[in-house]
Amino acid sequence: MIFCDIGNTYFHFYDTKSIWKVAPENLDKKFLTSQVYYISVCKEHEQKLLKLQHHARNIAEYIEIDTLYVGMGIDRKAACLSIFDGVVVDAGSAITIDVMHEGMHLGGCILPGLFAYMHGYASISPVLKKSFNFNLNLDDLPQNTQDAISFGVFKSLKGIIESMAKNKKIFFTGGDGKFLSKFFNNSIYDEMLIFRGMEKTFKDICSKEIK
Amino acid sequence: MIFCDIGNTYFHFYDTKSIWKVAPENLDKKFLTSQVYYISVCKEHEQKLLKLQHHARNIAEYIEIDTLYVGMGIDRKAACLSIFDGVVVDAGSAITIDVMHEGMHLGGCILPGLFAYMHGYASISPVLKKSFNFNLNLDDLPQNTQDAISFGVFKSLKGIIESMAKNKKIFFTGGDGKFLSKFFNNSIYDEMLIFRGMEKTFKDICSKEIK
Repeated sequence: MIFCDIGNTYFHFYDTKSIWKVAPENLDKKFLTSQVYYISVCKEHEQKLLKLQHHARNIAEYIEIDTLYVGMGIDRKAACLSIFDGVVVDAGSAITIDVMHEGMHLGGCILPGLFAYMHGYASISPVLKKSFNFNLNLDDLPQNTQDAISFGVFKSLKGIIESMAKNKKIFFTGGDGKFLSKFFNNSIYDEMLIFRGMEKTFKDICSKEIK
Repeated sequence: MIFCDIGNTYFHFYDTKSIWKVAPENLDKKFLTSQVYYISVCKEHEQKLLKLQHHARNIAEYIEIDTLYVGMGIDRKAACLSIFDGVVVDAGSAITIDVMHEGMHLGGCILPGLFAYMHGYASISPVLKKSFNFNLNLDDLPQNTQDAISFGVFKSLKGIIESMAKNKKIFFTGGDGKFLSKFFNNSIYDEMLIFRGMEKTFKDICSKEIK
């Protein structure tokens, strides 16, 4: 059995032992050695998977979360399902921040991912086409363009996450989650977050089908 | 006499009576009825101006500000020169936030402008291709994609500006400055900020040339 989370940039896989990711152009039958249960936020990539494994099964309809939010991405739902109380930050192509309180989803917001920020700057002016300084100290005011850009992104992300988390624990996941989590004391990085929600859902389906 | 601030998106003009802006494709001799004194952050647009008025004069070299910052845009320098103490937020193609303390520039950061944010979202997924909700209440957690995106941008900008301003007054300028200023009590919107710095510099040049 393989779980697959189809994102806008990568296919993320989990076979209950290890996690790995594959770029769409490298997706191959060799990664699909057993039945795939998946969720997807990208129609095009989903078709790519189904071409290689016709009987792969989309489990989105079983992932249900208590929320008033309309149009919540299925990956966000799965990640939020995996925790009872706290804030979920999924830092991938986009950065989503969602608040969970006693099993209920209270709402959430969306920011560009680090890569999208970098592209955004480059699109404004060639002067702003810089990589980030990942060793930046957020207590000092920036004195050059690379630091000014890095500070703008990291400090503003830190601020909004803090203001939404208040005293709640913060659960980070996604490609840039590990880096962002270092700005917080009350945080956990868990690359399994979405798969935990999928696994929970899968167990629910199985127990229902047994009954 | 006309002052011109050449940005990445527009030509901004000031003739000591009124302010107006012109898109590069619409730049015409009719806007250049007297001697132009300019600053520029865009070489290409600068060439366009010089083609129409060969004797237009770049006053960048006279705009000097007390700072350790390396590579500060000339428009930021001009805006900062116009105030003695406070925080300057120029919300145009990019959003720059600079801290001035007793005539000294202490440092600053750069974020994407609202338009660049919107493009950034659209580049991640068609689902995120939305306009902003400018009437959003930042005290409520978002419950749909448009609000989630608007909240992400506005709340994170509000947070970083607040954290950099502390108790200082905040001076907004630029196309989106008026909108962003409404999130702050201790703020002023002044579309003249850059021109004030240019005018100050111009007066300095004149008084030196008279001596």
